[in-house]
Amino acid sequence: MLHSLVYESQSGLQTGEYVNRKTASYEWKWVDFDSPAEDEKKVLESDFSFHPLAVEDCFQDLQRPKLDGYGDHNFFVLHTLDPHTLEKGEIDVFLKEGVLVTYHKKPSSVIEKVKEQVKQRPERYDEAVILHKILDQVVDAYFPIIYSIEDQINDLEDNTNDLSMEDMLEELFDRRSELLRMRQTIHSMRDMVYRMLYTHDLENVYEHKEYFRDIYDHLLKVSDMIASNREMTQDIRDSNLSMTSHRQNKTMQFLTVVSMIFLPLTFIAGVYGMNFAYMPELQYQYSYFIVWALMIIMAFAMIVFFRKKGWFD
Amino acid sequence: MLHSLVYESQSGLQTGEYVNRKTASYEWKWVDFDSPAEDEKKVLESDFSFHPLAVEDCFQDLQRPKLDGYGDHNFFVLHTLDPHTLEKGEIDVFLKEGVLVTYHKKPSSVIEKVKEQVKQRPERYDEAVILHKILDQVVDAYFPIIYSIEDQINDLEDNTNDLSMEDMLEELFDRRSELLRMRQTIHSMRDMVYRMLYTHDLENVYEHKEYFRDIYDHLLKVSDMIASNREMTQDIRDSNLSMTSHRQNKTMQFLTVVSMIFLPLTFIAGVYGMNFAYMPELQYQYSYFIVWALMIIMAFAMIVFFRKKGWFD
Amino acid sequence: MLHSLVYESQSGLQTGEYVNRKTASYEWKWVDFDSPAEDEKKVLESDFSFHPLAVEDCFQDLQRPKLDGYGDHNFFVLHTLDPHTLEKGEIDVFLKEGVLVTYHKKPSSVIEKVKEQVKQRPERYDEAVILHKILDQVVDAYFPIIYSIEDQINDLEDNTNDLSMEDMLEELFDRRSELLRMRQTIHSMRDMVYRMLYTHDLENVYEHKEYFRDIYDHLLKVSDMIASNREMTQDIRDSNLSMTSHRQNKTMQFLTVVSMIFLPLTFIAGVYGMNFAYMPELQYQYSYFIVWALMIIMAFAMIVFFRKKGWFD
Amino acid sequence: MLHSLVYESQSGLQTGEYVNRKTASYEWKWVDFDSPAEDEKKVLESDFSFHPLAVEDCFQDLQRPKLDGYGDHNFFVLHTLDPHTLEKGEIDVFLKEGVLVTYHKKPSSVIEKVKEQVKQRPERYDEAVILHKILDQVVDAYFPIIYSIEDQINDLEDNTNDLSMEDMLEELFDRRSELLRMRQTIHSMRDMVYRMLYTHDLENVYEHKEYFRDIYDHLLKVSDMIASNREMTQDIRDSNLSMTSHRQNKTMQFLTVVSMIFLPLTFIAGVYGMNFAYMPELQYQYSYFIVWALMIIMAFAMIVFFRKKGWFD
Amino acid sequence: MLHSLVYESQSGLQTGEYVNRKTASYEWKWVDFDSPAEDEKKVLESDFSFHPLAVEDCFQDLQRPKLDGYGDHNFFVLHTLDPHTLEKGEIDVFLKEGVLVTYHKKPSSVIEKVKEQVKQRPERYDEAVILHKILDQVVDAYFPIIYSIEDQINDLEDNTNDLSMEDMLEELFDRRSELLRMRQTIHSMRDMVYRMLYTHDLENVYEHKEYFRDIYDHLLKVSDMIASNREMTQDIRDSNLSMTSHRQNKTMQFLTVVSMIFLPLTFIAGVYGMNFAYMPELQYQYSYFIVWALMIIMAFAMIVFFRKKGWFD
Ligand SMILES: [Mg+2]
Ligand SMILES: [Mg+2]
Ligand SMILES: [Mg+2]
Ligand SMILES: [Mg+2]
Ligand SMILES: [Mg+2]
Ligand SMILES: [Mg+2]
Ligand SMILES: [Mg+2]
Ligand SMILES: [Mg+2]
Ligand SMILES: [Mg+2]
Ligand SMILES: [Mg+2]
Ligand SMILES: [Mg+2]
Ligand SMILES: [Mg+2]
Ligand SMILES: [Mg+2]
Ligand SMILES: [Mg+2]
Ligand SMILES: [Mg+2]
Ligand SMILES: [Mg+2]
Ligand SMILES: [Mg+2]
Ligand SMILES: [Mg+2]
Ligand SMILES: [Mg+2]
Ligand SMILES: [Mg+2]
Ligand SMILES: [Mg+2]
Ligand SMILES: [Mg+2]
Ligand SMILES: [Mg+2]
Ligand SMILES: [Mg+2]
Ligand SMILES: [Mg+2]
Ligand SMILES: [Mg+2]
Ligand SMILES: [Mg+2]
Ligand SMILES: [Mg+2]
Ligand SMILES: [Mg+2]
Ligand SMILES: [Mg+2]
Ligand SMILES: [Mg+2]
Repeated sequence: MLHSLVYESQSGLQTGEYVNRKTASYEWKWVDFDSPAEDEKKVLESDFSFHPLAVEDCFQDLQRPKLDGYGDHNFFVLHTLDPHTLEKGEIDVFLKEGVLVTYHKKPSSVIEKVKEQVKQRPERYDEAVILHKILDQVVDAYFPIIYSIEDQINDLEDNTNDLSMEDMLEELFDRRSELLRMRQTIHSMRDMVYRMLYTHDLENVYEHKEYFRDIYDHLLKVSDMIASNREMTQDIRDSNLSMTSHRQNKTMQFLTVVSMIFLPLTFIAGVYGMNFAYMPELQYQYSYFIVWALMIIMAFAMIVFFRKKGWFD
Repeated sequence: MLHSLVYESQSGLQTGEYVNRKTASYEWKWVDFDSPAEDEKKVLESDFSFHPLAVEDCFQDLQRPKLDGYGDHNFFVLHTLDPHTLEKGEIDVFLKEGVLVTYHKKPSSVIEKVKEQVKQRPERYDEAVILHKILDQVVDAYFPIIYSIEDQINDLEDNTNDLSMEDMLEELFDRRSELLRMRQTIHSMRDMVYRMLYTHDLENVYEHKEYFRDIYDHLLKVSDMIASNREMTQDIRDSNLSMTSHRQNKTMQFLTVVSMIFLPLTFIAGVYGMNFAYMPELQYQYSYFIVWALMIIMAFAMIVFFRKKGWFD
Repeated sequence: MLHSLVYESQSGLQTGEYVNRKTASYEWKWVDFDSPAEDEKKVLESDFSFHPLAVEDCFQDLQRPKLDGYGDHNFFVLHTLDPHTLEKGEIDVFLKEGVLVTYHKKPSSVIEKVKEQVKQRPERYDEAVILHKILDQVVDAYFPIIYSIEDQINDLEDNTNDLSMEDMLEELFDRRSELLRMRQTIHSMRDMVYRMLYTHDLENVYEHKEYFRDIYDHLLKVSDMIASNREMTQDIRDSNLSMTSHRQNKTMQFLTVVSMIFLPLTFIAGVYGMNFAYMPELQYQYSYFIVWALMIIMAFAMIVFFRKKGWFD
Repeated sequence: MLHSLVYESQSGLQTGEYVNRKTASYEWKWVDFDSPAEDEKKVLESDFSFHPLAVEDCFQDLQRPKLDGYGDHNFFVLHTLDPHTLEKGEIDVFLKEGVLVTYHKKPSSVIEKVKEQVKQRPERYDEAVILHKILDQVVDAYFPIIYSIEDQINDLEDNTNDLSMEDMLEELFDRRSELLRMRQTIHSMRDMVYRMLYTHDLENVYEHKEYFRDIYDHLLKVSDMIASNREMTQDIRDSNLSMTSHRQNKTMQFLTVVSMIFLPLTFIAGVYGMNFAYMPELQYQYSYFIVWALMIIMAFAMIVFFRKKGWFD
Repeated sequence: MLHSLVYESQSGLQTGEYVNRKTASYEWKWVDFDSPAEDEKKVLESDFSFHPLAVEDCFQDLQRPKLDGYGDHNFFVLHTLDPHTLEKGEIDVFLKEGVLVTYHKKPSSVIEKVKEQVKQRPERYDEAVILHKILDQVVDAYFPIIYSIEDQINDLEDNTNDLSMEDMLEELFDRRSELLRMRQTIHSMRDMVYRMLYTHDLENVYEHKEYFRDIYDHLLKVSDMIASNREMTQDIRDSNLSMTSHRQNKTMQFLTVVSMIFLPLTFIAGVYGMNFAYMPELQYQYSYFIVWALMIIMAFAMIVFFRKKGWFD
């Protein structure tokens, strides 16, 4: 479907399905290609004279967020992130004096929200302000995602959910790859908004510079949070692994030390279990008790020795 | 509460609650929004014509330290750090020719200290000098924090508190995450002061350039200290972990080597404990003593062999 | 073989083996040195007056992708990657007003594809557009390679092929070195296209700036993917290694704990296997059953104790 | 003590304690504040009109090496390193047309050496040349320190002193933290000299540019050496740790394999030590010898099997 | 020895020992200080008026490769690498309009090779072309070194020489430190040639810009190879270590699991080896066989259980 919002100061906002009426006068016009059918796609080339490379990028899905200037019009690729799956969605935008064209293969809640806002007070908008609102919505939607990841990482730090080591490692790995995937998107978006601010080509953006800088600020913050959360996950993993391995080593050492105590005792018992015909000790009346005493003394001596060595700590 | 400090060269400094008196002439005026009530907040928009984005940032808490120019006024976000919890506090500042507005949701000791200083010698101040004093206090307060972290790290290095490995690892982890959180704040503050110095928009700051450069110096030093302390914690952790794991491995090796000595001896004792009807050795008179001699010789031989192999080191 | 494509607006495209006809007028000319014989190589120097350093680089194979300006002509080294072996192929290009010369030691599918396209609609091309097409084909061929590596890494992440740890480590190592080798090529290509865009020497490239920027975009994307895939492999390896080592440690601990239970029991059995003439316990009627009871109680006590210590988890 | 060296081309060099004689004419003057008393400190503010921030920095000890311009005078903080303790010393320098003021809390051998040189040929100096000599001495003193650290690291690499693993790890850690501390100083010094070279404020430095660039070279070299020595320590530690841990693992494996051989043998001996009334094997004449044979065959079989598995390597 | 090559277009090239003949006219002159004696060294200062700092750097050996401008002459420090020992050699070069002076403490094969080339076709050279040839020879000599290191690393990757783990680790460590040392030299050389290209001081270099850019290319390539080979060694080490440690852990686990099977069996044998007067089982006729059956069943049960747990993999 191709939606059209045309604003003229006298007659106000006209909304409806897009029809190509060249003669119509307007102050600004926003055409939204919402999951366009194959024949609707062609309108991009026939009615608006956009650059074929930009149109090609619209149809493809491989794009990084970016800004391309093509003389009288500019082309933007924006990436949304699905809060649940972190899947990327693409919104392509063409900006021209008085004209804004948005293009998205799937219905977009961001675009719908902005449409609602525009319909309520159309006189406050123009093509650059609408672009700002779309960008603002896209970027605002990153925050709940990064906050949720950060909360999960903080939970992992204190291990509030009392996870086993294996589950914690898996959780950390998943958080890390989410941050990695998110970083790719955020860095490209950040670079794009930076270029919007400091390229003097974009006159209508330049007029609302403060507003786009506000978005840039938000992207900087998200990107900072991603970086320090990735470092945090590494710290948590390193710290937990070394703690656990250290504890296991200590347990093993304790067990080995204890087993050491039984080795000579069992050996002695073995010796007096031998069946030699002539073993003088076997005949003495107190031999058995002496051997018991000997074994107890040996055990004590070893415990004292090992404790001194610090092998029981 | 909204405090107001108005200075006029003839009548001197007038302090009190803020009232909007447009006609009053003054050399400079400082209005402090100290934990303002909901209706007091509106004064920001009604009496001063600050940019809505700056006002919005005032009310939010998500901000990174930053500097935004809005034509005739500039907006600053400063971050204080609580020396005990390392929690961030925010002080928002509006700077305009002759006017300084500070805004903070909670009472701020930094602001109170500066007020006292200003009241004592108001003739030495103007809006930029007051801003410098506030920044100076905020930044000076970072030092005790980083010094305290550094002291704790130095204690960990020498293990002056004789901590167990587990406690040391936990301490190191905590120091590292404190440094991580602190770094986020310090880097943003540093970038902001850098922009203050090299953006030529800020005329009244430019006049006192040396003073702001002095603050920049301090931020550079804190940021250096954070970086090298983080490296230090990593060195300490790596060094301790490898030392401990090496020691434990050596202990395990020692124990295993010792247990090796008893294995063949216990086997021999087992052999002569068998109950076969016809075992010729059992009948000889000196068998028992020969077996003892054999076992002692074997033990010695093994000890010599293992020592040679270096397995007792 | 030296192929020649000469275009003149009136007579159209002339193709065939290259012959040096100086007087011929043309709009543009493309000469392709396809696996040239030794004597054909000399044509580069005799018929075109290319700089000796550029010609030398043509004949060598050590080159990084690069762009060298030599006054009236420019020299490009492009690298193709074999999708199966990741081996580098080299295409050398000379660009001059109206003249394009390509040079490759082995037959090149990229060049053949572009030739086909040019032959179909020669009027749409000139020397810079042909260069763009060649570059576009070279860069497009990187994508299936990086996508295939990424797919393999994703399979490794979920271990869909149920590999043993050893095979997984080997797979990861191979993916990592493929990414390393690919990165070398992609970074040099990226830097070269960047220089094409921002060096104002290249007039005929400059006219088609948008098209070369489109290629630059693609190279940026490949280079991003290489970086995050390398990080991903590291994450997978770290995560798997720590998981496995943790699991093995736990198994070892379990086994050691179990063996601990038998140590004192076996010792007691050894004691009552001794052959002393006077061992009062041996004569009592219920001794045997008491010892059994004792051993069972000891085993239970130890199991309870170890479970409490968490050594069975 | 405040030393004064005043040079006038006619009367030559006048040295002695500093006295404020405003009328005296001179070509250049060097005043050295050598461990000044509290009242001597005030001279900095009373006699020379240096900027209060610079004077404040003189009195503090927190400073990083740096260069601050204050209109007609510049302020430098230089850091010396004690060759034995690596403790930082501070020399503060004020440079003004015709005037050099140095300030240090403790007696400085560097300053004394330069004084001697100046006294011998005062006609060759001016305030900038003296500053160069001081810097040159400070920087030359870094070399023996980094050379000594490098020598110690090279000794550790070959383990010429035959250190135990623990001592080597401790040595490496100490070298690393020395390099870390040294790096902080050298980087700041390097940045300062870089600014001296490329800030056009410093006219009298600019005249002797080659001489200051020579010092910059030396600082680059020290900073390179620090970086590669830190990498070297990491390589040595990693290499030694993995070597040692690999060796210990192999020892453990050998021991475990050997103990494996005795397990079934001891079990068999145990079986024939049982006291059942009816155990047919016990009565046969050759049972004992058959069991011995069996045990020897089993041992051999296991040794062959384990050797095949490579568990004895 | 001081060699002199003087070229004049009419009389051609004059070679021989250097004599100071001021009046002689020439187009260019190359004086080579080949392992100069103490008195020959002085010629540098007496006959050519080179800057004392440059002369000082000639006599010292501490220098990094670098380029210093001193008004009418430039000073270069070049580093050669010995292909066998990787030891650094230094060639110092002074470049002046029409004059080239080279200085090296030891005989230099690079210099000799260039001399031969110059003697054959002196009309093709001037002072800058000779400098280019020297640099070209120095840089070309880096390639066999890095190729040889790369080959050795590739051999280590496939372990073609079937090295033990210890030897491989030592080899990798040695390759890594060679790369580290080489990197220091190559980076400084690269930075120096970069400065030659983009400093507009060097007029005679500027005329042959393409030739020096060709050398820069080679240095970039060497520096890329060093970086990726260092990453490669790290990958190989990590991969091998984790593979080996994983294999050893598995062996240990297998051995421990096997020993687990004998523990209860040996315990049972011990129980029925006890000498209690009243042990009813001992008297039953089939007890012995029942116990054997029991032990075999237990062993099987444990094997099944452990296999299920995956402890035999
Ligand atoms: Mg595209
Ligand atoms: Mg698209
Ligand atoms: Mg927003
Ligand atoms: Mg946090
Ligand atoms: Mg990840
Ligand atoms: Mg905002
Ligand atoms: Mg907003
Ligand atoms: Mg706020
Ligand atoms: Mg301060
Ligand atoms: Mg201060
Ligand atoms: Mg310290
Ligand atoms: Mg942390
Ligand atoms: Mg200062
Ligand atoms: Mg070349
Ligand atoms: Mg080639
Ligand atoms: Mg393409
Ligand atoms: Mg992925
Ligand atoms: Mg690799
Ligand atoms: Mg394309
Ligand atoms: Mg200061
Ligand atoms: Mg000081
Ligand atoms: Mg020096
Ligand atoms: Mg060395
Ligand atoms: Mg350290
Ligand atoms: Mg020097
Ligand atoms: Mg010197
Ligand atoms: Mg030299
Ligand atoms: Mg060469
Ligand atoms: Mg390779
Ligand atoms: Mg190394
Ligand atoms: Mg060459």
